[in-house]
Amino acid sequence: MKKALILHSGGQDSTTCLVWALSKFAEVETISFDYGQRHRIELECAEKIAKEVGVKNTVIKVGDIFSQMGKNALTDTSVAIAESGHEKNKSLPTTFVPGRNLFFLTIAGSFAYGRGIHDLVTGVCQTDYSGYPDCRDDTVRAMESALRKGMDYDISIHTPLMFLTKADTVRIMRDHGKLDLLKYSHTCYEGARPACGKCPACVLRLRGFAESGEKDPLEYATH
Amino acid sequence: MKKALILHSGGQDSTTCLVWALSKFAEVETISFDYGQRHRIELECAEKIAKEVGVKNTVIKVGDIFSQMGKNALTDTSVAIAESGHEKNKSLPTTFVPGRNLFFLTIAGSFAYGRGIHDLVTGVCQTDYSGYPDCRDDTVRAMESALRKGMDYDISIHTPLMFLTKADTVRIMRDHGKLDLLKYSHTCYEGARPACGKCPACVLRLRGFAESGEKDPLEYATH
Repeated sequence: MKKALILHSGGQDSTTCLVWALSKFAEVETISFDYGQRHRIELECAEKIAKEVGVKNTVIKVGDIFSQMGKNALTDTSVAIAESGHEKNKSLPTTFVPGRNLFFLTIAGSFAYGRGIHDLVTGVCQTDYSGYPDCRDDTVRAMESALRKGMDYDISIHTPLMFLTKADTVRIMRDHGKLDLLKYSHTCYEGARPACGKCPACVLRLRGFAESGEKDPLEYATH
Repeated sequence: MKKALILHSGGQDSTTCLVWALSKFAEVETISFDYGQRHRIELECAEKIAKEVGVKNTVIKVGDIFSQMGKNALTDTSVAIAESGHEKNKSLPTTFVPGRNLFFLTIAGSFAYGRGIHDLVTGVCQTDYSGYPDCRDDTVRAMESALRKGMDYDISIHTPLMFLTKADTVRIMRDHGKLDLLKYSHTCYEGARPACGKCPACVLRLRGFAESGEKDPLEYATH
């Protein structure tokens, strides 16, 4: 009975990973992180989606850890969201929290160890990674190695979306007959429900659907 | 002006790393983790030691993150401290929190990034690592690689004590004329001040001093 733990942000990519994992593993559960994100709706979406497919979701509360490490637009409302212009590296968006996925993977790995789970699944994607270095394949492989050695435990990090386009990701959901589940997922950077349809995240999502020839079941304010 | 960030637990090894770093780097600061450890005295010791040598210490509050990941003797008083008998792996002590050092290193790395620091120093030691796999050199090197790739940032993790004995560690302090600083460090698993002198941690510390031919400046209840 192989069991997988899916890192679930409440977004389109992790929802797709969840559906992918349900087809590959005998048992599945999800883990979400409450890090004081400015859009609490993400956590509600993760819970709702887990419930829809009948899996257990655990929310790990990490407090204001990211703001203790430094300012960023994901948690600090005084920082504007911009596609580039990060204080240290102008090519990175202001939403960049250095090492954020390493942090999530480390906690997920430790949590998995405690439950006897050997397979993590995360929706990180190199194709449209917006400059986030911790979404790249070589980073994930290095982190996998650190977890294996650091816990002396056999653990694998699956990244089924790593080299896919957004359109490919839409097709996975279509092929599993689960497109409709994406109406519960959250993508909008503005935190809006219905989604704004105009922010970079909404635009990327809508473009993926357009390219795949499928209709996004999510409700949009303008579209 | 090279600056280093020392992970400081308040213990003997990290105090030695701090003294080592002060001799190697132009600027030094320390970082400690408040994870609800059962012995709060460790954090007070880290603060006191930083103050004694005139460096800035930052306490990162990570809340009850380890107990959210699973039971362990470091934070959960219902779990007895034992040198072996960990639930999943009987060869590991009950104080084992899987991936704890990976977690600390990830946060320290992110914090260092925010402050433009490229050098981390940690007192992990393979020689007497008590079965903790995240104290081994290969783990630290894997984590260093994950941090470099994941933050796209040049960062090194220095582990000056990795292959030293406890006696060697004592000699570093002696050679720097800083033995006396160790009276502020905390080692005792029982959290006692004066230290109990009987728990495995005290015994290991005292043996190191005995082998080095130096006297431990720490106050002990029995000795």
